[in-house]
Amino acid sequence: MERSIAPFDDRSITFLHLNAAAVAPGGLSDWLARQLRLAISAGRLPVGARLPATRVLAGELRVSRGVVTEAYRRLTEDGHVAGRGRRGTIVVAAPVVARPPVPASPPSPAVFAAEPGADVFDAVRAVPARIDLSPGLPDLAAFPRTAWLRAERRVVADLAPADFGYGDPRGAPRLRLAVAHWLARTRGISVDPGEVIIVAGVAQALGLFAQVLRRNGISKIAVEDPGSLGARQHLRYWQLDTPPIAVDGHLLADLRASGAAAVMLTPAHQFPTGLVLDGERRRELLRWAAAGGLIIEDDYDAEHRYDRPPVPALWSMLPERVCYAGSVSKLLAPALRVGWVLAPARYRDDLVDAKRFADLGNAALPQLVLAELMDSGDLERHLRFLRPRHRRRRDAMIQAIATHLPGAVVHGAAAGLHLMVTFDPGFADTDLAAAALARGVKVQPLSWHRQRPGPPGLVLGYAARTPTDIADGIAILGSVPRSGLPG
Amino acid sequence: MERSIAPFDDRSITFLHLNAAAVAPGGLSDWLARQLRLAISAGRLPVGARLPATRVLAGELRVSRGVVTEAYRRLTEDGHVAGRGRRGTIVVAAPVVARPPVPASPPSPAVFAAEPGADVFDAVRAVPARIDLSPGLPDLAAFPRTAWLRAERRVVADLAPADFGYGDPRGAPRLRLAVAHWLARTRGISVDPGEVIIVAGVAQALGLFAQVLRRNGISKIAVEDPGSLGARQHLRYWQLDTPPIAVDGHLLADLRASGAAAVMLTPAHQFPTGLVLDGERRRELLRWAAAGGLIIEDDYDAEHRYDRPPVPALWSMLPERVCYAGSVSKLLAPALRVGWVLAPARYRDDLVDAKRFADLGNAALPQLVLAELMDSGDLERHLRFLRPRHRRRRDAMIQAIATHLPGAVVHGAAAGLHLMVTFDPGFADTDLAAAALARGVKVQPLSWHRQRPGPPGLVLGYAARTPTDIADGIAILGSVPRSGLPG
Repeated sequence: MERSIAPFDDRSITFLHLNAAAVAPGGLSDWLARQLRLAISAGRLPVGARLPATRVLAGELRVSRGVVTEAYRRLTEDGHVAGRGRRGTIVVAAPVVARPPVPASPPSPAVFAAEPGADVFDAVRAVPARIDLSPGLPDLAAFPRTAWLRAERRVVADLAPADFGYGDPRGAPRLRLAVAHWLARTRGISVDPGEVIIVAGVAQALGLFAQVLRRNGISKIAVEDPGSLGARQHLRYWQLDTPPIAVDGHLLADLRASGAAAVMLTPAHQFPTGLVLDGERRRELLRWAAAGGLIIEDDYDAEHRYDRPPVPALWSMLPERVCYAGSVSKLLAPALRVGWVLAPARYRDDLVDAKRFADLGNAALPQLVLAELMDSGDLERHLRFLRPRHRRRRDAMIQAIATHLPGAVVHGAAAGLHLMVTFDPGFADTDLAAAALARGVKVQPLSWHRQRPGPPGLVLGYAARTPTDIADGIAILGSVPRSGLPG
Repeated sequence: MERSIAPFDDRSITFLHLNAAAVAPGGLSDWLARQLRLAISAGRLPVGARLPATRVLAGELRVSRGVVTEAYRRLTEDGHVAGRGRRGTIVVAAPVVARPPVPASPPSPAVFAAEPGADVFDAVRAVPARIDLSPGLPDLAAFPRTAWLRAERRVVADLAPADFGYGDPRGAPRLRLAVAHWLARTRGISVDPGEVIIVAGVAQALGLFAQVLRRNGISKIAVEDPGSLGARQHLRYWQLDTPPIAVDGHLLADLRASGAAAVMLTPAHQFPTGLVLDGERRRELLRWAAAGGLIIEDDYDAEHRYDRPPVPALWSMLPERVCYAGSVSKLLAPALRVGWVLAPARYRDDLVDAKRFADLGNAALPQLVLAELMDSGDLERHLRFLRPRHRRRRDAMIQAIATHLPGAVVHGAAAGLHLMVTFDPGFADTDLAAAALARGVKVQPLSWHRQRPGPPGLVLGYAARTPTDIADGIAILGSVPRSGLPG
């Protein structure tokens, strides 16, 4: 590395034109180390150059000698300069700088043109739109920032050092207890906290279930049709077949015909139709499960309901035949990536293994903050705050649809964060979604969530938007001439 | 659900002996709803019971009628009571309570008796010990709590609502940029931030690499012997063979003989031996990779070094043949579950898919807090604070070994958070670890990390313990009569 030694040019007024006058006294070493690194990486101090003696540079910059010694020490530790005894301190390697980001290609509004691929939701998210009526989000502007920070302060103050280490892959005991209480309160589920496993949201839950079922010889999981495209993509990624079954009276007949040993359902609020699994089908389904079938219960937004009492979770009826998944994504924020699963005893060890080898368990701090929010009542207060807000937004959307989308039929508006509209056949809903996006309004075509043909429709999220945005967005949707779209 | 209606017993002085006098005015509805839920779930208000009229109960409790109305509203929303017109408000369903946790079986100190299973690290963690000298942890007591909370406050204040939604599965752009700068500064890696993928620690990184390599036809990854048991378990979980290769001069010969198309290495600081991959083997290895081999570079603790300059990452020599993984586990805390990977362009899309279908991407808040700590210089300051602290602890351990473990050979103490000692053959190191644990000292037997036979030894973490604990722990280790252990 070492080359011939270029002496420091003493004719310059100050070394590298450095001027320490404007630097806060406490940050002088930081500043000097940074300036020297910049000079080395820019080639102004090439490999082989000698730095001034600490005494000389300190005098020149009018700083204490300790400031210079400390800056040189850091560069030495980083391997950029090295002491060479009487020959002084020499530059031996240039710091590397991060490359500037290559500009990403601009997001394409043609996302609705092709069959949706694995990255379709990322692609849609990347397209800018003035009004985003995508489903799946609660009112994110209402995220309880103050309560979150207050809880985090308490948690960080109370934490033992060992809590910052590796933890139980099943989750922090305190959160598992808080979730057991939460599920009892909000979902009528009576569960031992030791059976709760904390995961990174329902998406991870589906992946873990899929891995465990595959390892137990199940290769096919029937899914609702229409049913969540995202959930189906997750199961398929884990190499499970996903035969479609109806969400109406034909559910059980379709399920039996599919030959699948397992079925994934959204019983409390079917996605995207908003149907509630009624008593008759519920009983049939439980009989099917009791006879050897397995149910995956995706309880994604069960806390949100407006005009009806809660629907009990299937898990509480037949815990040994139901894998249950829920999360805070629709309650607080998807960005938290915290959820929970309950599973039949015979799958639990495999599930813990799957979670361990996925990521060794969720991060500790957000788990404990969430437990604090659950225990303190803050989360329940937040839900109570959200409900009337969401209800007003839903009402605004229904009103706007009645005004601007005559002929559209509204489905499933009694609960949740979205509703579904269907139209008379005669056009492709992907074309309607594309035309809306071209006008600045983002919506999801119903056909994305279908495996078998059906009337065109849209899935519209209302919870995350203001009534004004909702009214404007639906008016723009209404302005798209559907008769002009290809059939 | 509805049964005969039991009228409220008007003879009791106050309904359910409720007394609102000690309740803060703002919390009256919370309190009343909770009391009523408790009474219903305990059977004191059975299904079918009628609640007092709101006016009556308000008068009795001396609270405003709105307090009672609000409490009844919440119970109605939860589905526990229902309005029945002129018949009043009736209990229709009892709230469910969480089951008490089943006491876990006490952790067994026999963890060293059997072959280590998938849950061995969890099992060891669960055994209490007075002095824990397990490797793999930085000084967790030094976690920068104040800086973390300060950064989190700034992040939460600045966040747009959309940042609480679903994010880019590759990670938050701000953290990817900060990591690119961090890798340039500390690891001599020059990378476009667009190529950085944020993951949940090196454990998840290995799982994602394993999945992607399997999907690309690689079924065997050679691993160092001795080498990390944990890392090997992760690869095996994902159904990869892990043939062992030497960590000395035979590395390349073993690698070629293994027939593996990929190898996992810890070049900057071999785990557990602490060796640095020397120039000669480094050149041989890069030639092997350039001819079609693939290297997985586990850069798990490269920031920690005491008596030597940094070793450049292999990734920077041959980025198209190296999958690189690093994390903040050894820098800040494993409990944060944040790491990063760099990968050859041809694997990058598969890797993003694997991360998306693992968990849709890391949680947003901790990513942004970490970016803030990196950008503000707080993380670098923390590292500078840790270095002399860790060095003192290492020195304390070396000194204690010289005093209490005569005959033990110390390896790899110039860097990292642990060191390795080996002994003359003649006993099983798992027996030594078991005897130490029985005396309250937790250590890892070297044989756990071996696939082929070799001299007994221990892997000893020093960074997370005080010099006093280290000296005491090593003295206790020295008190175990090794000659009495079975050979």
